[in-house]
Amino acid sequence: MTVPRVQIELLQSLVKPELETQTGIRHRAEAYFKALQASLCSQFESLDGKAKFKKDAWSHTEGGGGITCILERGAIIEKAGVAFSSVRAALTETMASRLGVQPQPVLATGISLVIHPRSPMVPAVHLNLRYLELAADAWFGGGTDLTPSYLFEEDVRHYHGRLKNICDRHNPGWDPIFKKECDEYFFIKHRGETRGVGGIFFDYRREDPEQFFLFVQNIGNDFPASYLPIVEQRRHEPWGERERTWQCIRRGRYAEFNLVYDRGTLFGLETGGRTESILMSLPPEAAWVYDHRPDTGSREEALELVLRHPREWA
Amino acid sequence: MTVPRVQIELLQSLVKPELETQTGIRHRAEAYFKALQASLCSQFESLDGKAKFKKDAWSHTEGGGGITCILERGAIIEKAGVAFSSVRAALTETMASRLGVQPQPVLATGISLVIHPRSPMVPAVHLNLRYLELAADAWFGGGTDLTPSYLFEEDVRHYHGRLKNICDRHNPGWDPIFKKECDEYFFIKHRGETRGVGGIFFDYRREDPEQFFLFVQNIGNDFPASYLPIVEQRRHEPWGERERTWQCIRRGRYAEFNLVYDRGTLFGLETGGRTESILMSLPPEAAWVYDHRPDTGSREEALELVLRHPREWA
Repeated sequence: MTVPRVQIELLQSLVKPELETQTGIRHRAEAYFKALQASLCSQFESLDGKAKFKKDAWSHTEGGGGITCILERGAIIEKAGVAFSSVRAALTETMASRLGVQPQPVLATGISLVIHPRSPMVPAVHLNLRYLELAADAWFGGGTDLTPSYLFEEDVRHYHGRLKNICDRHNPGWDPIFKKECDEYFFIKHRGETRGVGGIFFDYRREDPEQFFLFVQNIGNDFPASYLPIVEQRRHEPWGERERTWQCIRRGRYAEFNLVYDRGTLFGLETGGRTESILMSLPPEAAWVYDHRPDTGSREEALELVLRHPREWA
Repeated sequence: MTVPRVQIELLQSLVKPELETQTGIRHRAEAYFKALQASLCSQFESLDGKAKFKKDAWSHTEGGGGITCILERGAIIEKAGVAFSSVRAALTETMASRLGVQPQPVLATGISLVIHPRSPMVPAVHLNLRYLELAADAWFGGGTDLTPSYLFEEDVRHYHGRLKNICDRHNPGWDPIFKKECDEYFFIKHRGETRGVGGIFFDYRREDPEQFFLFVQNIGNDFPASYLPIVEQRRHEPWGERERTWQCIRRGRYAEFNLVYDRGTLFGLETGGRTESILMSLPPEAAWVYDHRPDTGSREEALELVLRHPREWA
């Protein structure tokens, strides 16, 4: 992977861990997610060079609120959403019984990012980092995954490699687990395929919140160095109508996953979250073609094979 | 509403009711749905004049199967799906407990139709008629609804008027109930709006299956006369990029409803139904624009107002 021309700014951890209550961690997590949002928006704006993020601040009916930043119709980025939120949401009875607790408020703060690039040769990407408090429990969760329309193995190895490095610094056992959880989570059951080529996913990790807070910061801070070099590498690849059609079909699958399976999306919609912020992840354009099957031996088929049979990349 | 140029062929009821077992009704319903599919395909092919339906026969792993007919990239119709199926599907434990029965197979036969016209001035339309057997129970269900991107009140009155006429022939109490059930069913909760301008919807009607079978046939047979005159009336209305964009945004909402709320879609995907046949309802192209709001006083706003505040039309 060549060195990117785009400047990669690595956020420094904003607040040093110290002896604190759970509430203390929540405030530090909030501050970190907010600062990460600002940093990522500024880096993606520089990358695009044309479109700017619109900043949309909102408040939640039951307390808290968020800032949703959206860039649309850019030169390189067709649609990007970077959302920060910190809300107090009511657990529905169904959700409470699923988690084995009484109905009660859940406190959640986090950042979500989705990039849908214009070129079918540049993969879409998603990042989510969050901190939750429910009853006496508190935990970090999150993940990031890469969703190409065309497979460039070198890109996928680069992406997974960086994630593995970060995991290994914390615990060499994590990467294989979080990689597998990612493949399992981003699985479109009715299609028998994953949404993309994976990454990492972790949730409900109740042990050692300080270590997970550091981990979450390492993932967030490294994100530009994981993704931007891939954009730089692929943005000049040629493409035409055929590739655009395939990209739109893949984006249809992206919408299927988010609307049928994604826990964050369904949880948000069920609990009366802010619809526009939740659904900012949906692609700018998508297509559905009946029973579309890539030609044998085509580049489209090469991608499909990897989605049907996830590989080890790092 | 002017008389359509397209020939409207009214299917005659194929089989006369007679003293029969429940199984007898199932076979007659199957035969009717299959014949209705053939008739509708032939009429929509005539309407389009360019594209032809591709016929896709399939069989279900647990018994039964279906015929899915798809027309894509037509002159007037951008995508149409007309699907017949007759399957034996396993109720999942969740579904069985929801219905208050033991896990057991459900027998279902029906026809589904979705038309996504090319012109944003021609409304999309949906029709579903079905017959189910579960344990000792058997019932017909179904509905039809109109989904315009632009509101032509005359069209909506025509559509609802024909449905009311059919309902009134059976029971003058039905139309207000089935109209209301339609508005409630096709409601996109997270958007606070209905998918379209309604029609009728009915389900779990266990009384008098013979009367409901006749009702279902009347709805099916009258469908061309409800919809085709609207196509004839609006196909030459001018439209451009603005209208296309709005149509694609509306289609995004259509996809949201089908993937988040539609019972048939979720039931089908959960029970391992045939994905391509279930998702044939999804639009050929859809778009998501962040926080899109129609201009005050615009035609787009006129539609949105009706979706937020359903009216009486017949």
